[in-house]
Amino acid sequence: MQDEAVVLLSGGLDSTVCMAVAAQQHRLWPITFAYGQRHAREVEQARQVAAHFGVARHLVVDCGFFRDIGGSSLTVHHLEVPLGREEAQLGTDIPSTYVPFRNGVFLALAVAYAESVGAATVFIGVNALDYSGYPDCRPQFIEAFQAAVNAGTAAGARGNPITIAAPLLHLDKAGIVRLGARLGAPFELTSSCYLGGEVACGQCDACRLRLKGFREAGLADPIPYAVTPAAGP
Amino acid sequence: MQDEAVVLLSGGLDSTVCMAVAAQQHRLWPITFAYGQRHAREVEQARQVAAHFGVARHLVVDCGFFRDIGGSSLTVHHLEVPLGREEAQLGTDIPSTYVPFRNGVFLALAVAYAESVGAATVFIGVNALDYSGYPDCRPQFIEAFQAAVNAGTAAGARGNPITIAAPLLHLDKAGIVRLGARLGAPFELTSSCYLGGEVACGQCDACRLRLKGFREAGLADPIPYAVTPAAGP
Repeated sequence: MQDEAVVLLSGGLDSTVCMAVAAQQHRLWPITFAYGQRHAREVEQARQVAAHFGVARHLVVDCGFFRDIGGSSLTVHHLEVPLGREEAQLGTDIPSTYVPFRNGVFLALAVAYAESVGAATVFIGVNALDYSGYPDCRPQFIEAFQAAVNAGTAAGARGNPITIAAPLLHLDKAGIVRLGARLGAPFELTSSCYLGGEVACGQCDACRLRLKGFREAGLADPIPYAVTPAAGP
Repeated sequence: MQDEAVVLLSGGLDSTVCMAVAAQQHRLWPITFAYGQRHAREVEQARQVAAHFGVARHLVVDCGFFRDIGGSSLTVHHLEVPLGREEAQLGTDIPSTYVPFRNGVFLALAVAYAESVGAATVFIGVNALDYSGYPDCRPQFIEAFQAAVNAGTAAGARGNPITIAAPLLHLDKAGIVRLGARLGAPFELTSSCYLGGEVACGQCDACRLRLKGFREAGLADPIPYAVTPAAGP
Protein backbone atom coordinates (compact mmCIF):
# COMPACT_ATOMS: atom_id res chain seq x y z
CA MET A 1 0.00 0.00 0.00
CA GLN A 2 1.21 3.46 -0.86
CA ASP A 3 0.94 6.26 1.65
CA GLU A 4 -0.20 9.63 0.43
CA ALA A 5 2.31 12.47 0.42
CA VAL A 6 2.02 16.19 -0.28
CA VAL A 7 5.08 17.56 -2.11
CA LEU A 8 5.99 21.23 -2.32
CA LEU A 9 6.71 21.53 -6.06
CA SER A 10 8.17 24.69 -7.58
CA GLY A 11 9.22 23.21 -10.90
CA GLY A 12 12.88 23.73 -10.11
CA LEU A 13 15.59 21.12 -9.82
CA ASP A 14 15.40 20.55 -6.07
CA SER A 15 11.66 20.09 -5.73
CA THR A 16 11.62 17.83 -8.80
CA VAL A 17 14.26 15.56 -7.26
CA CYS A 18 12.17 15.71 -4.09
CA MET A 19 9.19 14.45 -6.15
CA ALA A 20 11.32 11.56 -7.42
CA VAL A 21 12.28 10.64 -3.85
CA ALA A 22 8.67 10.82 -2.67
CA ALA A 23 7.44 8.82 -5.67
CA GLN A 24 9.40 5.79 -4.50
CA GLN A 25 7.01 5.09 -1.66
CA HIS A 26 4.10 7.48 -1.92
CA ARG A 27 1.13 8.54 -3.95
CA LEU A 28 1.89 12.18 -4.76
CA TRP A 29 -0.20 15.28 -4.08
CA PRO A 30 1.98 18.11 -5.41
CA ILE A 31 1.17 21.67 -4.39
CA THR A 32 2.60 24.70 -6.19
CA PHE A 33 2.46 28.31 -5.05
CA ALA A 34 1.95 30.83 -7.84
CA TYR A 35 2.59 34.45 -7.18
CA GLY A 36 2.82 36.86 -10.02
CA GLN A 37 3.75 36.86 -13.67
CA ARG A 38 7.41 36.26 -12.95
CA HIS A 39 6.49 32.81 -11.78
CA ALA A 40 4.31 31.83 -14.75
CA ARG A 41 7.09 29.80 -16.31
CA GLU A 42 7.89 28.05 -13.03
CA VAL A 43 4.25 27.08 -12.65
CA GLU A 44 4.19 25.69 -16.19
CA GLN A 45 7.31 23.66 -15.38
CA ALA A 46 5.68 22.41 -12.21
CA ARG A 47 2.66 21.31 -14.25
CA GLN A 48 4.90 19.35 -16.61
CA VAL A 49 6.76 17.71 -13.74
CA ALA A 50 3.47 16.78 -12.06
CA ALA A 51 2.23 15.30 -15.36
CA HIS A 52 5.48 13.36 -15.70
CA PHE A 53 4.78 11.67 -12.40
CA GLY A 54 1.18 10.96 -13.42
CA VAL A 55 -0.44 12.59 -10.40
CA ALA A 56 -4.21 12.57 -10.03
CA ARG A 57 -4.31 16.20 -8.94
CA HIS A 58 -1.84 19.09 -9.01
CA LEU A 59 -2.96 21.89 -6.73
CA VAL A 60 -1.78 25.33 -7.85
CA VAL A 61 -2.44 27.89 -5.15
CA ASP A 62 -2.68 31.53 -6.08
CA CYS A 63 -0.69 33.52 -3.56
CA GLY A 64 -1.46 37.06 -4.57
CA PHE A 65 -1.38 37.90 -0.86
CA PHE A 66 2.40 37.47 -0.92
CA ARG A 67 2.59 40.75 -2.79
CA ASP A 68 0.47 42.49 -0.15
CA ILE A 69 2.56 41.14 2.68
CA GLY A 70 5.99 41.36 1.13
CA GLY A 71 5.39 44.60 -0.71
CA SER A 72 4.69 46.37 2.53
CA SER A 73 8.34 46.12 3.50
CA LEU A 74 9.26 48.28 0.53
CA THR A 75 6.40 50.72 0.41
CA VAL A 76 4.71 51.08 3.77
CA HIS A 77 7.36 50.90 6.38
CA HIS A 78 10.78 52.30 6.92
CA LEU A 79 12.22 49.53 9.08
CA GLU A 80 14.82 47.27 7.62
CA VAL A 81 13.89 43.81 6.37
CA PRO A 82 17.19 41.98 6.36
CA LEU A 83 16.06 39.02 4.26
CA GLY A 84 14.68 41.26 1.55
CA ARG A 85 17.96 43.14 1.53
CA GLU A 86 19.94 39.95 1.21
CA GLU A 87 17.88 39.05 -1.86
CA ALA A 88 18.58 42.46 -3.32
CA GLN A 89 22.27 41.96 -2.75
CA LEU A 90 22.09 38.80 -4.84
CA GLY A 91 21.05 40.99 -7.76
CA THR A 92 17.67 39.29 -8.34
CA ASP A 93 14.36 41.08 -8.76
CA ILE A 94 12.71 39.05 -6.02
CA PRO A 95 12.35 41.62 -3.22
CA SER A 96 8.95 42.97 -4.28
CA THR A 97 7.43 39.49 -4.02
CA TYR A 98 9.68 38.13 -1.33
CA VAL A 99 8.00 36.93 1.84
CA PRO A 100 9.85 36.55 5.10
CA PHE A 101 9.10 33.21 6.77
CA ARG A 102 8.13 31.89 3.33
CA ASN A 103 8.80 28.27 4.16
CA GLY A 104 6.74 28.71 7.31
CA VAL A 105 3.82 29.84 5.14
CA PHE A 106 4.41 27.12 2.51
CA LEU A 107 4.71 24.36 5.10
CA ALA A 108 1.62 25.53 6.99
CA LEU A 109 -0.45 25.43 3.80
CA ALA A 110 1.05 22.10 2.75
CA VAL A 111 0.27 20.60 6.16
CA ALA A 112 -3.30 21.89 5.94
CA TYR A 113 -3.57 20.25 2.51
CA ALA A 114 -2.02 17.04 3.82
CA GLU A 115 -4.51 16.86 6.65
CA SER A 116 -7.30 17.55 4.18
CA VAL A 117 -6.36 14.77 1.74
CA GLY A 118 -5.26 12.36 4.46
CA ALA A 119 -1.54 12.45 3.61
CA ALA A 120 0.88 11.36 6.33
CA THR A 121 3.93 13.14 4.90
CA VAL A 122 4.86 16.55 3.50
CA PHE A 123 8.00 16.68 1.35
CA ILE A 124 10.02 19.88 1.04
CA GLY A 125 13.20 20.26 -1.03
CA VAL A 126 15.21 22.58 1.22
CA ASN A 127 18.91 21.79 1.28
CA ALA A 128 22.32 22.68 2.61
CA LEU A 129 22.84 25.40 0.02
CA ASP A 130 19.61 27.13 0.97
CA TYR A 131 19.98 27.05 4.66
CA SER A 132 23.21 28.95 4.83
CA GLY A 133 21.27 32.09 4.00
CA TYR A 134 17.64 31.56 4.93
CA PRO A 135 16.60 30.95 8.52
CA ASP A 136 13.47 29.09 7.37
CA CYS A 137 15.62 26.53 5.51
CA ARG A 138 17.68 25.50 8.52
CA PRO A 139 17.37 22.03 10.03
CA GLN A 140 16.42 23.53 13.37
CA PHE A 141 13.51 25.33 11.72
CA ILE A 142 12.25 22.13 10.09
CA GLU A 143 12.49 20.36 13.46
CA ALA A 144 10.69 23.14 15.31
CA PHE A 145 7.96 23.33 12.68
CA GLN A 146 7.51 19.56 12.96
CA ALA A 147 6.83 20.01 16.68
CA ALA A 148 4.24 22.70 15.90
CA VAL A 149 2.56 20.36 13.41
CA ASN A 150 2.50 17.59 15.99
CA ALA A 151 0.81 19.91 18.48
CA GLY A 152 -1.51 21.72 16.10
CA THR A 153 -3.09 19.10 13.84
CA ALA A 154 -5.85 16.61 14.50
CA ALA A 155 -3.53 13.89 13.16
CA GLY A 156 -0.88 14.91 15.67
CA ALA A 157 -3.37 15.09 18.52
CA ARG A 158 -4.40 11.51 17.70
CA GLY A 159 -0.76 10.36 17.82
CA ASN A 160 -0.34 9.97 14.05
CA PRO A 161 1.47 13.19 13.24
CA ILE A 162 2.08 14.41 9.72
CA THR A 163 5.82 14.02 9.05
CA ILE A 164 7.79 16.75 7.34
CA ALA A 165 10.36 15.04 5.13
CA ALA A 166 13.31 17.04 3.82
CA PRO A 167 15.36 14.38 2.00
CA LEU A 168 17.72 16.91 0.40
CA LEU A 169 18.43 18.75 3.64
CA HIS A 170 22.09 17.79 3.92
CA LEU A 171 22.91 17.50 0.20
CA ASP A 172 24.74 20.04 -1.91
CA LYS A 173 23.77 20.64 -5.56
CA ALA A 174 26.01 17.87 -6.92
CA GLY A 175 24.52 15.44 -4.42
CA ILE A 176 21.02 16.47 -5.48
CA VAL A 177 21.91 15.95 -9.16
CA ARG A 178 23.36 12.50 -8.41
CA LEU A 179 20.29 11.51 -6.41
CA GLY A 180 17.96 12.77 -9.12
CA ALA A 181 19.89 10.94 -11.83
CA ARG A 182 19.73 7.69 -9.88
CA LEU A 183 15.94 8.04 -9.50
CA GLY A 184 15.31 9.17 -13.08
CA ALA A 185 14.11 12.66 -12.16
CA PRO A 186 13.02 14.60 -15.29
CA PHE A 187 15.80 17.20 -15.25
CA GLU A 188 14.82 18.24 -18.78
CA LEU A 189 11.52 19.68 -17.48
CA THR A 190 13.10 21.87 -14.83
CA SER A 191 14.89 25.17 -14.72
CA SER A 192 16.35 27.12 -11.88
CA CYS A 193 16.97 30.42 -13.65
CA TYR A 194 16.14 33.52 -11.63
CA LEU A 195 15.16 35.43 -14.77
CA GLY A 196 12.39 33.03 -15.73
CA GLY A 197 12.88 33.46 -19.48
CA GLU A 198 12.09 30.88 -22.17
CA VAL A 199 15.71 29.68 -22.05
CA ALA A 200 17.76 29.65 -18.87
CA CYS A 201 20.25 32.53 -18.87
CA GLY A 202 23.24 30.50 -17.71
CA GLN A 203 24.66 33.50 -15.91
CA CYS A 204 22.56 34.18 -12.81
CA ASP A 205 23.56 32.68 -9.47
CA ALA A 206 20.94 29.94 -9.73
CA CYS A 207 22.02 28.85 -13.24
CA ARG A 208 25.69 28.85 -12.23
CA LEU A 209 24.97 26.84 -9.10
CA ARG A 210 22.98 24.30 -11.09
CA LEU A 211 25.63 23.98 -13.81
CA LYS A 212 28.31 23.58 -11.17
CA GLY A 213 26.24 20.82 -9.55
CA PHE A 214 25.94 18.90 -12.81
CA ARG A 215 29.64 19.42 -13.52
CA GLU A 216 30.68 18.15 -10.09
CA ALA A 217 28.33 15.18 -10.46
CA GLY A 218 29.98 14.38 -13.81
CA LEU A 219 26.68 14.67 -15.65
CA ALA A 220 25.39 16.80 -18.52
CA ASP A 221 22.57 19.23 -17.78
CA PRO A 222 19.96 18.44 -20.47
CA ILE A 223 18.37 21.91 -20.60
CA PRO A 224 19.54 24.60 -23.03
CA TYR A 225 21.22 27.77 -21.82
CA ALA A 226 21.44 31.14 -23.53
CA VAL A 227 25.07 31.36 -22.45
CA THR A 228 27.09 28.49 -21.09
CA PRO A 229 29.75 29.86 -18.80
CA ALA A 230 33.25 28.48 -19.03
CA ALA A 231 33.80 25.70 -16.51
CA GLY A 232 35.24 27.30 -13.42
CA PRO A 233 36.43 25.98 -10.10
CA MET B 1 7.83 54.62 21.95
CA GLN B 2 5.21 52.18 20.77
CA ASP B 3 6.21 48.82 19.40
CA GLU B 4 4.51 47.61 16.27
CA ALA B 5 2.18 44.62 16.55
CA VAL B 6 0.32 42.54 13.98
CA VAL B 7 -3.13 41.48 15.21
CA LEU B 8 -5.18 38.64 13.71
CA LEU B 9 -8.56 40.37 13.39
CA SER B 10 -11.69 38.47 12.37
CA GLY B 11 -14.23 41.07 13.44
CA GLY B 12 -15.57 38.78 16.15
CA LEU B 13 -15.65 39.41 19.88
CA ASP B 14 -12.39 37.65 20.77
CA SER B 15 -10.13 39.25 18.17
CA THR B 16 -11.64 42.68 18.91
CA VAL B 17 -10.83 42.33 22.61
CA CYS B 18 -7.39 41.19 21.48
CA MET B 19 -7.08 44.45 19.51
CA ALA B 20 -7.98 46.39 22.66
CA VAL B 21 -5.30 44.55 24.62
CA ALA B 22 -2.70 45.12 21.92
CA ALA B 23 -3.66 48.80 21.57
CA GLN B 24 -2.53 49.49 25.13
CA GLN B 25 1.13 49.22 24.22
CA HIS B 26 1.43 48.83 20.47
CA ARG B 27 0.86 50.47 17.14
CA LEU B 28 -1.57 48.06 15.41
CA TRP B 29 -1.22 46.30 12.06
CA PRO B 30 -4.43 44.24 11.84
CA ILE B 31 -4.61 41.44 9.29
CA THR B 32 -7.90 39.81 8.26
CA PHE B 33 -8.36 36.65 6.21
CA ALA B 34 -11.29 36.72 3.79
CA TYR B 35 -12.49 33.51 2.28
CA GLY B 36 -15.79 33.40 0.50
CA GLN B 37 -19.06 35.24 0.53
CA ARG B 38 -20.07 33.76 3.88
CA HIS B 39 -17.36 35.86 5.46
CA ALA B 40 -18.22 39.16 3.76
CA ARG B 41 -19.99 40.44 6.86
CA GLU B 42 -17.13 39.43 9.14
CA VAL B 43 -14.68 41.29 6.92
CA GLU B 44 -16.88 44.40 7.04
CA GLN B 45 -16.98 44.13 10.84
CA ALA B 46 -13.21 43.79 10.90
CA ARG B 47 -12.92 46.95 8.80
CA GLN B 48 -15.08 48.85 11.26
CA VAL B 49 -13.10 47.57 14.23
CA ALA B 50 -9.84 48.51 12.52
CA ALA B 51 -11.23 51.99 11.81
CA HIS B 52 -12.34 52.31 15.44
CA PHE B 53 -8.74 51.84 16.53
CA GLY B 54 -7.53 54.33 13.92
CA VAL B 55 -5.00 52.04 12.27
CA ALA B 56 -2.86 53.30 9.40
CA ARG B 57 -3.39 50.12 7.38
CA HIS B 58 -5.75 47.17 7.60
CA LEU B 59 -4.53 44.27 5.47
CA VAL B 60 -7.32 42.05 4.15
CA VAL B 61 -5.88 38.91 2.61
CA ASP B 62 -7.91 37.00 0.07
CA CYS B 63 -7.69 33.32 0.94
CA GLY B 64 -9.48 31.70 -1.96
CA PHE B 65 -6.96 28.88 -1.68
CA PHE B 66 -8.68 27.75 1.53
CA ARG B 67 -11.51 26.48 -0.63
CA ASP B 68 -9.09 24.52 -2.82
CA ILE B 69 -7.38 22.98 0.15
CA GLY B 70 -10.34 22.44 2.41
CA GLY B 71 -12.76 21.48 -0.35
CA SER B 72 -10.58 18.63 -1.37
CA SER B 73 -11.43 16.79 1.82
CA LEU B 74 -15.04 16.70 0.73
CA THR B 75 -14.79 16.16 -2.98
CA VAL B 76 -11.49 14.59 -3.94
CA HIS B 77 -10.62 12.07 -1.31
CA HIS B 78 -12.39 9.44 0.67
CA LEU B 79 -10.31 9.58 3.84
CA GLU B 80 -11.84 11.03 6.96
CA VAL B 81 -11.04 14.56 8.02
CA PRO B 82 -11.87 14.57 11.71
CA LEU B 83 -11.82 18.31 12.23
CA GLY B 84 -14.13 18.93 9.31
CA ARG B 85 -16.47 16.35 10.73
CA GLU B 86 -16.43 17.98 14.11
CA GLU B 87 -17.49 21.23 12.50
CA ALA B 88 -20.30 19.41 10.72
CA GLN B 89 -21.41 17.93 14.01
CA LEU B 90 -21.75 21.43 15.41
CA GLY B 91 -24.41 22.04 12.81
CA THR B 92 -22.60 24.87 11.06
CA ASP B 93 -22.03 25.18 7.32
CA ILE B 94 -18.30 25.66 7.73
CA PRO B 95 -16.88 22.39 6.38
CA SER B 96 -16.65 23.48 2.74
CA THR B 97 -14.32 26.32 3.73
CA TYR B 98 -12.78 24.75 6.79
CA VAL B 99 -9.03 24.38 6.77
CA PRO B 100 -7.21 21.95 9.03
CA PHE B 101 -4.24 23.62 10.75
CA ARG B 102 -5.92 26.94 10.13
CA ASN B 103 -4.20 28.77 12.96
CA GLY B 104 -0.91 27.37 11.67
CA VAL B 105 -1.62 29.02 8.32
CA PHE B 106 -2.91 32.25 9.89
CA LEU B 107 0.05 32.55 12.25
CA ALA B 108 2.57 31.80 9.50
CA LEU B 109 1.11 34.57 7.33
CA ALA B 110 0.86 36.96 10.28
CA VAL B 111 4.49 36.29 11.21
CA ALA B 112 5.54 36.92 7.59
CA TYR B 113 3.63 40.19 7.72
CA ALA B 114 5.16 41.08 11.09
CA GLU B 115 8.65 40.50 9.78
CA SER B 116 7.81 42.57 6.72
CA VAL B 117 6.53 45.61 8.63
CA GLY B 118 9.05 45.26 11.44
CA ALA B 119 6.56 44.26 14.15
CA ALA B 120 7.93 42.49 17.20
CA THR B 121 4.64 40.89 18.27
CA VAL B 122 1.76 38.95 16.70
CA PHE B 123 -1.49 38.91 18.67
CA ILE B 124 -3.97 36.04 18.30
CA GLY B 125 -7.27 35.75 20.18
CA VAL B 126 -7.42 32.00 20.81
CA ASN B 127 -8.85 31.08 24.18
CA ALA B 128 -9.80 28.32 26.58
CA LEU B 129 -13.15 27.74 24.88
CA ASP B 130 -11.51 27.19 21.51
CA TYR B 131 -8.74 24.92 22.55
CA SER B 132 -10.90 22.20 23.96
CA GLY B 133 -11.84 21.25 20.41
CA TYR B 134 -9.16 22.54 18.07
CA PRO B 135 -5.60 21.27 18.32
CA ASP B 136 -4.27 24.47 16.74
CA CYS B 137 -5.77 26.53 19.57
CA ARG B 138 -4.02 24.66 22.38
CA PRO B 139 -1.33 26.36 24.48
CA GLN B 140 1.16 23.67 23.47
CA PHE B 141 0.59 24.53 19.81
CA ILE B 142 1.16 28.23 20.42
CA GLU B 143 4.38 27.39 22.30
CA ALA B 144 5.62 25.05 19.59
CA PHE B 145 4.80 27.54 16.85
CA GLN B 146 6.71 30.19 18.78
CA ALA B 147 9.78 27.94 18.68
CA ALA B 148 9.38 27.52 14.91
CA VAL B 149 9.15 31.29 14.52
CA ASN B 150 12.28 31.75 16.60
CA ALA B 151 14.14 29.29 14.37
CA GLY B 152 12.70 30.32 11.02
CA THR B 153 12.72 34.11 10.91
CA ALA B 154 15.54 36.55 10.35
CA ALA B 155 14.43 38.36 13.51
CA GLY B 156 14.69 35.12 15.47
CA ALA B 157 18.07 34.29 13.96
CA ARG B 158 19.32 37.70 15.13
CA GLY B 159 18.10 37.02 18.67
CA ASN B 160 15.09 39.36 18.51
CA PRO B 161 12.33 36.86 17.86
CA ILE B 162 8.80 37.85 16.96
CA THR B 163 6.63 37.07 20.00
CA ILE B 164 3.27 35.39 19.60
CA ALA B 165 0.96 36.90 22.22
CA ALA B 166 -2.28 35.12 23.09
CA PRO B 167 -3.66 37.26 25.93
CA LEU B 168 -7.05 35.51 25.98
CA LEU B 169 -5.58 32.01 26.06
CA HIS B 170 -6.77 31.09 29.52
CA LEU B 171 -9.96 33.17 29.64
CA ASP B 172 -13.50 31.92 29.15
CA LYS B 173 -16.11 34.05 27.37
CA ALA B 174 -17.17 35.92 30.51
CA GLY B 175 -13.54 36.72 31.24
CA ILE B 176 -13.08 38.00 27.70
CA VAL B 177 -16.19 40.20 28.01
CA ARG B 178 -14.96 41.61 31.33
CA LEU B 179 -11.51 42.33 29.90
CA GLY B 180 -13.00 43.95 26.80
CA ALA B 181 -15.34 46.09 28.90
CA ARG B 182 -12.47 47.28 31.07
CA LEU B 183 -10.47 48.29 27.98
CA GLY B 184 -13.40 49.87 26.13
CA ALA B 185 -13.46 47.34 23.29
CA PRO B 186 -16.14 48.26 20.71
CA PHE B 187 -18.47 45.31 21.33
CA GLU B 188 -21.15 47.06 19.28
CA LEU B 189 -19.12 46.57 16.08
CA THR B 190 -18.66 42.82 16.53
CA SER B 191 -20.73 39.73 16.00
CA SER B 192 -19.97 36.09 16.54
CA CYS B 193 -22.96 34.59 14.71
CA TYR B 194 -22.20 31.52 12.60
CA LEU B 195 -24.90 32.43 10.10
CA GLY B 196 -23.35 35.77 9.18
CA GLY B 197 -26.71 37.52 8.61
CA GLU B 198 -27.42 41.22 9.01
CA VAL B 199 -28.63 40.59 12.57
CA ALA B 200 -27.11 37.92 14.80
CA CYS B 201 -29.46 34.93 15.05
CA GLY B 202 -29.22 34.51 18.82
CA GLN B 203 -29.64 30.76 18.49
CA CYS B 204 -26.49 29.26 17.02
CA ASP B 205 -23.78 27.93 19.33
CA ALA B 206 -21.62 31.04 18.85
CA CYS B 207 -24.47 33.46 19.68
CA ARG B 208 -25.47 31.44 22.74
CA LEU B 209 -21.89 31.29 23.96
CA ARG B 210 -21.49 35.03 23.54
CA LEU B 211 -24.77 35.85 25.28
CA LYS B 212 -23.87 33.51 28.13
CA GLY B 213 -20.49 35.29 28.43
CA PHE B 214 -22.15 38.72 28.73
CA ARG B 215 -24.71 37.34 31.20
CA GLU B 216 -22.04 35.79 33.40
CA ALA B 217 -20.02 39.00 33.25
CA GLY B 218 -23.13 40.91 34.36
CA LEU B 219 -23.08 43.10 31.28
CA ALA B 220 -25.54 43.80 28.47
CA ASP B 221 -24.54 42.75 24.97
CA PRO B 222 -25.04 45.92 22.87
CA ILE B 223 -25.74 44.18 19.54
CA PRO B 224 -29.28 43.28 18.40
CA TYR B 225 -30.36 39.64 18.06
CA ALA B 226 -33.14 38.22 15.92
CA VAL B 227 -34.14 36.01 18.83
CA THR B 228 -32.92 36.45 22.39
CA PRO B 229 -32.96 33.10 24.14
CA ALA B 230 -34.28 32.90 27.65
CA ALA B 231 -31.47 33.13 30.19
CA GLY B 232 -30.39 29.58 30.98
CA PRO B 233 -27.80 28.04 33.22
